[in-house]
Amino acid sequence: MSFTVTILGSGSAVPTNNRFPTSHFISCNSRFILIDCGEGTQFQMRKFNLKIQSIQIILITHLHGDHFFGLPGLLSTMHLLGRNRGLKIIGPEGLENCLRSQLEIGQNRLDFEIEFIALAKNSTHCVYKDKVIEINTFPLNHRIQTQGYVIKELPGELNMCKELVENEKIPLEVIHQLKAGKDFLDSNGMFWKYKKYTLPPKPRLSYAFCSDTKYDERIIESIKGTTLLYHEATFLEIDSARARQTFHSTAQDAAKIAMKGKVKKLLMGHMSARYSNPNQHISEAKLFMKNVEFAEDGMILKLEEI
Amino acid sequence: MSFTVTILGSGSAVPTNNRFPTSHFISCNSRFILIDCGEGTQFQMRKFNLKIQSIQIILITHLHGDHFFGLPGLLSTMHLLGRNRGLKIIGPEGLENCLRSQLEIGQNRLDFEIEFIALAKNSTHCVYKDKVIEINTFPLNHRIQTQGYVIKELPGELNMCKELVENEKIPLEVIHQLKAGKDFLDSNGMFWKYKKYTLPPKPRLSYAFCSDTKYDERIIESIKGTTLLYHEATFLEIDSARARQTFHSTAQDAAKIAMKGKVKKLLMGHMSARYSNPNQHISEAKLFMKNVEFAEDGMILKLEEI
Repeated sequence: MSFTVTILGSGSAVPTNNRFPTSHFISCNSRFILIDCGEGTQFQMRKFNLKIQSIQIILITHLHGDHFFGLPGLLSTMHLLGRNRGLKIIGPEGLENCLRSQLEIGQNRLDFEIEFIALAKNSTHCVYKDKVIEINTFPLNHRIQTQGYVIKELPGELNMCKELVENEKIPLEVIHQLKAGKDFLDSNGMFWKYKKYTLPPKPRLSYAFCSDTKYDERIIESIKGTTLLYHEATFLEIDSARARQTFHSTAQDAAKIAMKGKVKKLLMGHMSARYSNPNQHISEAKLFMKNVEFAEDGMILKLEEI
Repeated sequence: MSFTVTILGSGSAVPTNNRFPTSHFISCNSRFILIDCGEGTQFQMRKFNLKIQSIQIILITHLHGDHFFGLPGLLSTMHLLGRNRGLKIIGPEGLENCLRSQLEIGQNRLDFEIEFIALAKNSTHCVYKDKVIEINTFPLNHRIQTQGYVIKELPGELNMCKELVENEKIPLEVIHQLKAGKDFLDSNGMFWKYKKYTLPPKPRLSYAFCSDTKYDERIIESIKGTTLLYHEATFLEIDSARARQTFHSTAQDAAKIAMKGKVKKLLMGHMSARYSNPNQHISEAKLFMKNVEFAEDGMILKLEEI
């Protein structure tokens, strides 16, 4: 079981030679999720040896081009490489029509099903859940409807206490029940209490994604206690007026949300093309949050190691 | 005065690590033209130090994604970098609506005017002309409406015969008239015949662009005698059945059109991702056309040197 985030694009609306527009690839307990899909996302996946066909779910935060102009190309390539298994795309209303019209104008068909889930403005609910993960969405505060997402592991099985398993030679069928947190009466009439034989499961890891947004403390409730918070940090404090005007955040804004949300680590991104490196962003964020990093294209973050 | 072509993308519908989808940048006597605009064209322009804002005209051949999915991102970046001078976009009907809907969904405005020129199916006419160049379009034979283009220098001024200019001390006002091909009676009553004092102008260079198309001899009339012919060569002869089925060409198809059109040089491109290098394409084309090259991303061709 593992939970990793690969940065495909860490730049903002104007791309640079080093920073493609926003896209993150998440591998979480054999679930493969793409969040946002700026132009060139498919090139970045190829460059960083990630399998385009592995993607099961695409989450789109909002309909500014630097967050979704890579989608039609990615879907075309999935088709051309022979995809037939379905794909789920979750994002603001209007995305489906926009994508379908771009593909249909060239008379391109897709040989796989896409399930579009359209999110109404200010959606705050679970958008996906299976046995091992759940994904919740919440509103951000940007110029147009923008949704944040939190991907969380679900509680795993309990861990058996190894010493007791060996000393008491516990049968396999009993172990299954105890790990699931159930007491068990076996065929010999012996009663096993799960609390005696198990230890708590490993901590649940979680990844919160906030792009793009101005500083808004209403976000804190949704990202509280996450392992890793990605929060855009387009600007430095010296350009905070520009940040307010364009509904974006500074590095300090991002760090304050991370601190107040008591997350374990903050990952900043969406750097304006006006800055040449993230040193100053990191210095400014460290005033509020020690464990902080700035995203770079190709960077891989392992949530177990945070 | 110069005429150069820079290859921004030489791949086909499925991009590879080395080949972006189709786009060529043409600099011709201070006119700057983009032909096709696959995903990532703006990144390639930046990588190869070409100025996005220099583009005056964009020619789109057809509405398959690998030829136009880079347009909305390019236009957004032009706007964000402060463009205010107009842009002409020439391509098949339907392109304008498709582009506008992608920009409007994110409530993005552009602070510059775009003049869209929509080409009806099978258009064969001049789409642009000024003092130094003209651009003609003609139909190709693909699965959907596809237009080829020829960019031609217009006849330049005559060249003065240097020796006579020096020996006879010809006044500047007379030179202007003679270079324009006009006889002239000066204020001293002296009659100057332009044919005596001038040499023919330098040859008119021209660039023809054929993407995507199956082999079709009707193309020859439109590309006849051009300096450089770009013709797609997606496949090798061994895959010619696939070429026919998908309305694409083999390297031999491209070379036959070049040979029959008596062009000076053939440039092939749009290589299928199934091939790792163009060696075999070149060998097969050389059976019909000696002066041939396969496009590579970043390649620059100077038409004066052909």
